Formats: sequence, structure tokens, C-alpha cells
Amino acid sequence: MLTFYFAPGSCALASLIALEESGLAYEPRRLNLANGDQRQPDYLAVNPKGRVPALVTDKGVITENVAILAYVAQIVPAAKLAPLDDPFEFAQMQAFNSYLSSTVHINHSHKGRGYRWTDDAAAIETMKAKVPQTMTESFALIEDKMLKGPWVMGDQYTVADGYLFTMAKWLPGDNVDRDQFAKVSAHYARMLERPAVKKALAVEEG
Amino acid sequence: MLTFYFAPGSCALASLIALEESGLAYEPRRLNLANGDQRQPDYLAVNPKGRVPALVTDKGVITENVAILAYVAQIVPAAKLAPLDDPFEFAQMQAFNSYLSSTVHINHSHKGRGYRWTDDAAAIETMKAKVPQTMTESFALIEDKMLKGPWVMGDQYTVADGYLFTMAKWLPGDNVDRDQFAKVSAHYARMLERPAVKKALAVEEG
Ligand SMILES: N[C@@H](CCC(=O)N[C@@H](CS)C(=O)NCC(=O)O)C(=O)O
Ligand SMILES: N[C@@H](CCC(=O)N[C@@H](CS)C(=O)NCC(=O)O)C(=O)O
Repeated sequence: MLTFYFAPGSCALASLIALEESGLAYEPRRLNLANGDQRQPDYLAVNPKGRVPALVTDKGVITENVAILAYVAQIVPAAKLAPLDDPFEFAQMQAFNSYLSSTVHINHSHKGRGYRWTDDAAAIETMKAKVPQTMTESFALIEDKMLKGPWVMGDQYTVADGYLFTMAKWLPGDNVDRDQFAKVSAHYARMLERPAVKKALAVEEG
Repeated sequence: MLTFYFAPGSCALASLIALEESGLAYEPRRLNLANGDQRQPDYLAVNPKGRVPALVTDKGVITENVAILAYVAQIVPAAKLAPLDDPFEFAQMQAFNSYLSSTVHINHSHKGRGYRWTDDAAAIETMKAKVPQTMTESFALIEDKMLKGPWVMGDQYTVADGYLFTMAKWLPGDNVDRDQFAKVSAHYARMLERPAVKKALAVEEG
């Protein structure tokens, strides 16, 4: 049995969607980040980084969306959630996911988590001010160079789609107009129609 | 034939070490980041993100260390550079690499690349000031919770080791004493003895 730790509105939605797409049974466990649940000793025993998502398996805990997404795809090959038989295509998917985690998510984090990288209140405000620009630049690159369409990897839906959806969901809150990116917007609308995405959003809401 | 774009002193060393460990033939192409080679049109045609590393294969270009590392391990299984037959162990390795790329590397980037996230010169200085603290915290977590020893994943050397070595190499420049982390320091010394690491460092130096 799998246990999945997440928080509403967080990046954990990417892995939550993958779990729903896979058909795997799992127990969802909701954390309230605003209350600091992620820094409580019981959760730090699960994930010493104090972040979500975390997936508890029979063998141990897996953290990081990039790792959880590939894992879910690999253990349920029948769900065809990744190009598992082609190392080059698999690498393209991993590169996409890694860009989201190391660049897009980080740009977004400078809005609400600037204190990670500076102790200066005025500096934090200047970071927040730049988030619309950095998120716009990242999504322009995704729109123009990365999203093949209709899905991230082309005709095959993969775990990268749920991750892109999760980042695109943040755009309005980051003061970025999603509609300016035609392919990203169409992808977002397409995702909202998927039963697994509806289910994941319902699990998030609780 | 593979072509590998890198820059001396950069995170591309992680993938360079993996290439050397794999025994694959590749042509190294050196970029000078200080000169802005990564923003020239010819390089942007290879990697529109304007970053290194980039690995050009017969099928297309792979970017992001996390993706390149797994790819090299997968296409040369005989080199045993990743736990390819165990999805859980593979996920643990991917989680380690993803932590380096999305947290450790990002902490470090606030020293020299603060302008990515703010336009304010004073804010950039406050970011630089916090780098020793954030890098110390990340490496304390690696030391205490993540690095199994003797290699990252335990007894089996993997591509994660070259990536950890690359980040650990940055510590003195980030004003962090590597010696305070006994396991990380021993790992670093062990890496320096590997022929592939010596070769990668020689390729870097040119
Ligand atoms: N690289 C990690 C990032 C995880 C992460 O930063 N999660 C955020 C939510 S989006 C979190 O738990 N934040 C809590 C905190 O910073 O205290 C991943 O992709 O899984
Ligand atoms: N997430 C990427 C990050 C790549 C990256 O930021 N590379 C740096 C060198 S360490 C770079 O090319 N910087 C050039 C620039 O910012 O202009 C990866 O791990 O491959």
C-alpha cells in the first residue's frame, strides 16, 4: 500500500495526478503548509527536507516530483505514462520535468518563499516583483520550444502533462495571463477534461 | 557520435564525469560562460535555455543534468552507473539528483546569478550573503540523511556520485568548509582517485 503526503495548491498535485492516472491504490495524507505541518517532527521523520510531495512505499520513502513521476510510470507500465522503452524519449521527458522543478518552480517560489535565499525584507519584495517576468519567460520557452502538443511529449500522454498542468495552474496567482500562451492554455483545458485530473483535484479539495 | 557542450567550473561536470565513466565516445565542446557563449545564436539553436550541459545525440539534444545522467546510465547498462532494474532504487537515485538540481544548485546560484530573480543590486548582495548558510544546511542534510556511503547509493557507484562531487567542489568558493562534513569529504577524496574523474577534470581544463 502507498501513502501519499501532499498539500493543497502545492507542486504535489503533479504526483497526485500521476497516481490517479496509474490506477494505483494509495492513501492520501493532507498537510497544511500554512500551519507548518511540514516542519513537525512526525513529518520530518518521513521527509527530513520538510517538503511535499512524499510517497511512502513498502521499500521506503520517495521524495521529489521528478523521481515520483518516473517511479509511478515505471511500476505501472500498462498505464503508458512514460516512454519507458526508449531511453532518448525517456530522457526528453525527464529533461522537461527537471526544467519544471529546477527553473519554473524556483521562479514561482520567489513569490512566497523568498526568505529561503535572503534575510532582507526589502530584498524579498524585489523578488516578488520579478516573478511575473520570470514565469512569463519560462512559459514562453515552454510554449515555443518545449510543448509538442497535444501533450508535452506529442501524441502520448505522460506524467509530464500533470506536472505542466500544476505549474500552469499557478500562473494567474503569479499575475501571468495564461491565455497569452495558446498551446499551454489548450493543454490546460484538455487536462481539466481528464477523469484522473478531476479526481486529483477532488482529492486536493478533500 | 555524441557531442557534449560544457563549461569549466559549471554543473556540466556531473554529466562529463558520467560520460567518462560510461566509456562512450563523445566530442567535448567548451563554452566560455563569462564571455556569454551560451547566449550566442549558434548555441541557442542547440539549447534555447542558454545553459550547459547539453548532449547532442543522433536523435536530438538532451539538456538537464538529471536527464543526461540517467540517459548515459541507461544506454550503457554494462557500466552499471545506475540501479536500472529496480524502480525504487532508481527513484532514490533520481530523487538525490533532483534535490541537487532543484535545491543545492539553486542555493549556489544565488551567489553569482541573483539577477535571475531580482533587478535590485542591493537585494543581490543580500542573496550572496546567505549562500554559505543555505549551502551548509543542504550539505548537512546530505551528510546526515542522504549519502549512504561509501557512494551516494551505498556500495554501488552511480551517476549521482559525479553530481555530488560537482556540488561539493563548489563549497570552498561558497565559503563553506567541506571538512566539517566527514562523509562528504571522504566521498570527495574517493572521487578524486577515480580515473574517470581525473579524465573529466582534464577535459574541463582543456
Ligand atoms: N524539488 C521538490 C520541491 C518540493 C517543494 O518545494 N514543495 C513545496 C510545496 S510546492 C513545499 O513543501 N514547501 C513547504 C515549505 O517550503 O515549507 C519537488 O519537486 O518535489
Ligand atoms: N537545471 C539545469 C541547470 C543548468 C545551469 O544552470 N547551468 C549553468 C552552469 S552551472 C549555466 O549554464 N549558466 C549560464 C547562464 O546562466 O548564463 C541542469 O541541471 O542542467
